[in-house]
Amino acid sequence: MTRSHAYHPDRLLPAEPGVRDIARRLLAHVEDLPIISPHGHLDPAMFVDDEPFPDPTALLISPDHYLTRVLHSAGVELADLGVGGHDCVPREAWRIFCSRFDLYAGTASGYWLEQEFAQVFGIDPERLTADNADEVYDELATILAQPDFRPRALAERFGLEVLATTDDPLDDLAAHRALAEDPSFTSRVLPTFRPDAYTKMYKPEFADNVTRLIDSAGDGKSGYEGYLQAMRNRRQYFIDHGATSSDHGTHDAGSTPLSDAEAQALLDKGLRGDATRAEALAFEANMTYRFAEMAQDDGLVMTLHPGVYRNHSTSTFQKYGADVGHDIPFRMEYTEGLQPLLSSFGENPDFHFVLFTIDETTFSREIAPLAGYYPSVYAGAPWWFIDEIDAMNRFRAATTGTTGFSRYSGFIDDTRAYCSIPARHNTSRRVEAGYLARLVAEHRLSEERAADVIVDLIDASPRRVFKL
Amino acid sequence: MTRSHAYHPDRLLPAEPGVRDIARRLLAHVEDLPIISPHGHLDPAMFVDDEPFPDPTALLISPDHYLTRVLHSAGVELADLGVGGHDCVPREAWRIFCSRFDLYAGTASGYWLEQEFAQVFGIDPERLTADNADEVYDELATILAQPDFRPRALAERFGLEVLATTDDPLDDLAAHRALAEDPSFTSRVLPTFRPDAYTKMYKPEFADNVTRLIDSAGDGKSGYEGYLQAMRNRRQYFIDHGATSSDHGTHDAGSTPLSDAEAQALLDKGLRGDATRAEALAFEANMTYRFAEMAQDDGLVMTLHPGVYRNHSTSTFQKYGADVGHDIPFRMEYTEGLQPLLSSFGENPDFHFVLFTIDETTFSREIAPLAGYYPSVYAGAPWWFIDEIDAMNRFRAATTGTTGFSRYSGFIDDTRAYCSIPARHNTSRRVEAGYLARLVAEHRLSEERAADVIVDLIDASPRRVFKL
Amino acid sequence: MTRSHAYHPDRLLPAEPGVRDIARRLLAHVEDLPIISPHGHLDPAMFVDDEPFPDPTALLISPDHYLTRVLHSAGVELADLGVGGHDCVPREAWRIFCSRFDLYAGTASGYWLEQEFAQVFGIDPERLTADNADEVYDELATILAQPDFRPRALAERFGLEVLATTDDPLDDLAAHRALAEDPSFTSRVLPTFRPDAYTKMYKPEFADNVTRLIDSAGDGKSGYEGYLQAMRNRRQYFIDHGATSSDHGTHDAGSTPLSDAEAQALLDKGLRGDATRAEALAFEANMTYRFAEMAQDDGLVMTLHPGVYRNHSTSTFQKYGADVGHDIPFRMEYTEGLQPLLSSFGENPDFHFVLFTIDETTFSREIAPLAGYYPSVYAGAPWWFIDEIDAMNRFRAATTGTTGFSRYSGFIDDTRAYCSIPARHNTSRRVEAGYLARLVAEHRLSEERAADVIVDLIDASPRRVFKL
Repeated sequence: MTRSHAYHPDRLLPAEPGVRDIARRLLAHVEDLPIISPHGHLDPAMFVDDEPFPDPTALLISPDHYLTRVLHSAGVELADLGVGGHDCVPREAWRIFCSRFDLYAGTASGYWLEQEFAQVFGIDPERLTADNADEVYDELATILAQPDFRPRALAERFGLEVLATTDDPLDDLAAHRALAEDPSFTSRVLPTFRPDAYTKMYKPEFADNVTRLIDSAGDGKSGYEGYLQAMRNRRQYFIDHGATSSDHGTHDAGSTPLSDAEAQALLDKGLRGDATRAEALAFEANMTYRFAEMAQDDGLVMTLHPGVYRNHSTSTFQKYGADVGHDIPFRMEYTEGLQPLLSSFGENPDFHFVLFTIDETTFSREIAPLAGYYPSVYAGAPWWFIDEIDAMNRFRAATTGTTGFSRYSGFIDDTRAYCSIPARHNTSRRVEAGYLARLVAEHRLSEERAADVIVDLIDASPRRVFKL
Repeated sequence: MTRSHAYHPDRLLPAEPGVRDIARRLLAHVEDLPIISPHGHLDPAMFVDDEPFPDPTALLISPDHYLTRVLHSAGVELADLGVGGHDCVPREAWRIFCSRFDLYAGTASGYWLEQEFAQVFGIDPERLTADNADEVYDELATILAQPDFRPRALAERFGLEVLATTDDPLDDLAAHRALAEDPSFTSRVLPTFRPDAYTKMYKPEFADNVTRLIDSAGDGKSGYEGYLQAMRNRRQYFIDHGATSSDHGTHDAGSTPLSDAEAQALLDKGLRGDATRAEALAFEANMTYRFAEMAQDDGLVMTLHPGVYRNHSTSTFQKYGADVGHDIPFRMEYTEGLQPLLSSFGENPDFHFVLFTIDETTFSREIAPLAGYYPSVYAGAPWWFIDEIDAMNRFRAATTGTTGFSRYSGFIDDTRAYCSIPARHNTSRRVEAGYLARLVAEHRLSEERAADVIVDLIDASPRRVFKL
Repeated sequence: MTRSHAYHPDRLLPAEPGVRDIARRLLAHVEDLPIISPHGHLDPAMFVDDEPFPDPTALLISPDHYLTRVLHSAGVELADLGVGGHDCVPREAWRIFCSRFDLYAGTASGYWLEQEFAQVFGIDPERLTADNADEVYDELATILAQPDFRPRALAERFGLEVLATTDDPLDDLAAHRALAEDPSFTSRVLPTFRPDAYTKMYKPEFADNVTRLIDSAGDGKSGYEGYLQAMRNRRQYFIDHGATSSDHGTHDAGSTPLSDAEAQALLDKGLRGDATRAEALAFEANMTYRFAEMAQDDGLVMTLHPGVYRNHSTSTFQKYGADVGHDIPFRMEYTEGLQPLLSSFGENPDFHFVLFTIDETTFSREIAPLAGYYPSVYAGAPWWFIDEIDAMNRFRAATTGTTGFSRYSGFIDDTRAYCSIPARHNTSRRVEAGYLARLVAEHRLSEERAADVIVDLIDASPRRVFKL
C-alpha cells in the first residue's frame, strides 16, 4: 500500500511547478507558527479535567456533525454513530466509519481527517478500510490512553496559543477561570459571549431563558430595561473572564433599531409566546443593533453569521436535536440589513465587526465592499460548508481585488473536533501560500511582500481583529 | 488549413503538463464506456421508424435552440432557420449557419458542434465557413443518406445503452413499447413522466389538459381526488413501460402541501381560469409535494429543475412558440422551498430526489448541503446554460468540498440534438478527468482512487441514482 | 531595492509557462492599439483648459474614491485626504498615502497605481513608502509641471482615441463643442446623457431638477408630457454634440411601463415630495422603459447599471456627500425586471442595450442568457468593484460558454482618475490575452482564431456596440 498523500510535503499546494515552489517557500514562513483560534465550540472543562479521551468513536465521530452528516447521506442511521446522545456500540460505529471512508474523498472533512490521522496519531489514512477497522480502533484506543494524548499535552503539541470557546451568557465561566488561574497551563482559553438563546422569540425556550436572565442579572430591573441591563452585566462578566468577542448567529442581517416602547411591546409578546415570525425577526434585528451599541462602550469584538436554516429536517430534530448536520444555508444579503447599524457605528475603528457568510455570492458583492470602506468591518474567513480548499481560494479571489489583505478576520476553525484543529489551520496556511504564490508568479506581488502578507494573515490578523 | 483542435486527443484537458498527463490516464478509464442518458428530449419514434435524417438543417439546426439562439442574437431571423415549424430553405439556413460559425467560438455548443462534425461526420469543423457552406452541405446530405447514419446505426456506434425521453402523462408510449419488444434494437429507450402541462394553472391549456386527464385516467373519480388518482395511474402506466423517473420543471422550489379541501378549491379556480398567480404557484408547490409522496409508493426517481422564466420574449412566443431559446433563468432558492417535502420524505434512502439548477449560486449554498445530509437528495449535473466546461468545473469545485462524489446524479445531456450526444458525454468525461487530475496533482487524492471515482461518476452514478 | 513587477513584461499574465507564451503573443496583437473609452467620469473642461495638474494629491488621491475608500477602511479620515472638497495639506495627504501604500497589495487599484507610476511617471512604485514620500512628491510635482504632462499631451501619449464623459441632461456641452471644433485636438471627447438626477423621486433635489428641466426644454408643455418632451429634446441636443449613448444608474432593473395617467399622477406626487419608496421605484422603472422607447427613435445606445445602495453611511454622506466610496452593491435580478422592456424592444438589432452588473451571480444566470438571445442585449464589462483581474476572468468564464465573444460591450474604465486610464485598459488586455491563451492551450480555440477574437474584443467591440 502506498503511503497516503496526507504525508506529502506538497499536499494541497498548487500543481504548477513554478507556483508550487513559491508556495513552499511562503508556507515555510508560517507552517510552524502557533495556533490562534478565536472562534470554536470546544468544552473548556476538557482542559480542566485533562482526562484521557474515552474512545475513538466518542472523540472523533459522534460529536462531529461534519462527519456524521456525510455518513447519514449514504443511508447510515445517526443513532448508530452515537449522535445526539444516542447510545451506540463504539466499535460498531467505527466499523461503519472505516467501511465508508471513501465517502470523504475530496471533502474538506476528508482532508482534515487524513492529515489528523497521519500527523496527530501516526496512522496512515490509507488503512481506514473495513478490513482494518478493528485493528485501527485498537491502535487508536491504545494511543488515546497515553499521557501524551490528553487534552493539555495535545494543546502543547498543537502549539495552541489561544482558543476561544462559545458560551451561554449565564455560564459561570468557572472552567475558564480555573484555567486562567492555573500557571501550569499556558494556552489562553477565552469565553465568547453568545446570546442567541435569549434573542430568538421563535424558539420555544425563549421565555424561560429571558426570565432567568433578567432575574439573575438585571440588577432588579424588569422588562426590556432589565433585559438590556442583564446583557450589559453579563458581557462585562465575560470580559472580566477574558472574553474579547461576542458571537451572533442571527437569522438574517437585519439591524433596524426599535424604540424602547416598541421593543418592550415585542418583548412582552415574545414572553407570552404571541409574537409572529416577523415580530420575532424585528426583535432579533433590534438586538443586533443593541449589541453593536453595547460594543461601543465595552469594546467586545462582534461577529455575525446569519443565513442558516437551523434544524431543517423536522424528524431528525425530534430524534436527535440541534447541531447534528441538518442546518442548511440560504441566500443572504448584508447591504440593506446592516445599513442602520453601520450608519450609527460603522465609522468607529475601535469597533470590530466581523461578517461571516456561507453564501459565497456576498463575498465580492457586499462583504468586500463593506470591509473595504468601513473601518469597523472585517471580512470573516470562509466558514462551515465553505471552509475548504477551493472555497477558500474563491474567497481570496473574490475579496482581494476590492479590500486587499488588511480587512481579513484571520482563520476560524469553528470546530467541535479538537484533534482536527492542527489540520484545519494547516490547510488554511497551505491555501494562503498557494494563493499568494499565484500572485507572485503572475507578477502581481513581490515574493518579499507576499512573505509579509502571509505572516500577517496567519498570525497578526486574528490577534489584531479579535483584540488578543 | 490546419486540422481543427476537435481532433486533438488532449482537447478540453487542462493545460498544465503534469495535470494533463494524469487527466489523459484518467480519461482512458472512461472514454469508451457506453452512454447512459437518463434525461433528454429526443422523439422515440425516430428509432421505431429508423428513417434517414431529412437534411443537414432539419437534423442539426432547426430543432436545436442552443444553436438558433446564438444566431438570433446576431440578428438572424428565427424563421430563416426553420424554427418553430416555419418553412425555410434548408440550404439557405445552412449558409447562414456556416457564415456565422465564428459566433460559437468558446461556447459549449461550439465545442459540441466541432466534435460532432469531426467525430460523427468526419468533417473538419475548420471547413464551416461561408465559402465552403454548399460543399459541406452536399457532403453531409450524402452522408446522411447512408445506412450507417440512420438513428439505430448511430445508436450502436454511439454506444447508447440507455436513453430516457420526456413524455406527456397521457402519451400512450407506443413507441417505447415497440422498441422494448424489438429484439433487434439493443438500446434501452425509457419514457419519463413529465406532468408540467397538468400542474400550471397559469398556462392557458391547463383546464383542457386536466379535464382530459381526469376523464381518461381518473377511475371515474372527479375533482382533485380524480386528478390525483389519474396521476397515480399514469405514473404506473409509465413504470409498466420502463420509466424510472418523473421530471418536474416547476417555477420555483416551493413544496408546501395543501389540505385536500384547499387543493380542491384551488383546482376549481384553476379550471375556471380564476386563479391568481400566487394561487397557481401554491397549487404547483402542493403538487411538487404530492409527486414526492407518490414516489414513496411507486419508487419513481424525482428530478426537479425550477428557476426558468419561460418564453421571455412575448413577440417571439407569439411567432415561434415555446422552447426556441428565449427561456431565461432567474435567481433560485431551495432551502426554504423544499423544507416541507424533505421534512416528510427526505430521510428515505429509497426515494431519489435529484435537484437541478441553473443558478450556480445554489451549488455551494444549498444543493451541496442538502445532498450532503439527506439520503434522498442528489446534486444534479450542471444543466442547460451551465452545461459547459468551465461551469462544470465550478460545479465540482463548489460541491465536492461538502458532499464529495457520492451524491452526484451522473451526467445529463438534456438534448434535442441526437448527434451531439457523444460530444456532450465526451466533454463531461474530459472535464471530470481534468478536475480529478488537479486533485491528484495537488496531492488531495491518489491516482488509484481518482480512477475509481471517475468510473463511478461516469458509469455507476447514473445507473444508481436513476435506478437503471 | 528590486525593480517593481509593474515593469515586468509578463505582469498579470498566467503563470503556467505554456499558457504564458501564448498570452504574450496574443497580447502583442493589441497592446499598442488606441484606447476607446466609451464610459467614464472625467471633466471635459480639462482638455479645453489644458492646464498643468495642480499637485500629486489633487491629481491622484482626492478625487479617486477607489483609493480613498481603502485608506478610510484603515482608519484614515477622508478630510485628511481632501475628499468631498475638504481642504487638506496635499503633502500631508501624500505622506499618508505613501505610508499606507501596502494596503493596496493585491487590489485592482494597486495594480493600476503601480503601472501608472511605472509607465506614466517613470517612478518605481517600490519607492512609495513613508521614507520616500516627500522625495517622490517633489519629483512628481516637477514632472506635473512639464508640458508633456498636461492633459492634451497625455491624451496623445495614451493613444486616447475616444473618451466619453458623463453629463447632466441640462449641461450646455460647451466643452464638448469647443473640443470638437478644435482641429488641434484629435481625441474624440463625447458626452453621455445621464438623466438619473431627474428620475429618482427619492432624492431631495428631484422636484427642483424636474421643474428646471420642463421649464427649459419642455417646448412649453407641462407635466409628464413636458417632462418626456424635454428628455427627447435634450437627448437630441446631446446627439447633436456627438453623444452616442445614454447611461442609467437605476436602483433596480424594473422596467414596467405606466400609462400616461398613472405616470402623471406619480410625477405630481414626486414633485410634491409625497411619493412612497414603492411609487418612486415604479416611476423610475417606467422611465427605464421610456428611455428604451426613445432609443428606438433616436438610436442612442442605452447602458444600465442597477444594484448599488448609494451613500450607505449616513454620517459620511452628511460630511462628504456622494461618490466618496460608500456605495455598496446589493443583490440584483434582471430577468423579471427587464421582461417588459425586452418584450417590446429586445428584438430590435439597432437598439443597443448594455447590461452592467456588480452582482457576479447574474453573469451566468441572467446576463449571458439574455445577451445570448436578444439581438439588442450586450453583456457589459465587469465594472467598479469587480473591475479587477480575477473577476474579469470570472466574467469570461461565466459568460463565454453561453454567449461566446460577440455580445461583449468592450472594456469600460468608468474612471475619474485620468492617469490610470492606460493601466486600466492595459490590465484588461492582459486579462483577455491570458484567458484566451488558456482556451488555446486547452485545445478549445486555435491561436489564429484567438488572435482575431482579442482584436475584436479590444478594438472592434466598443466601436460596434457604442456606435462609434
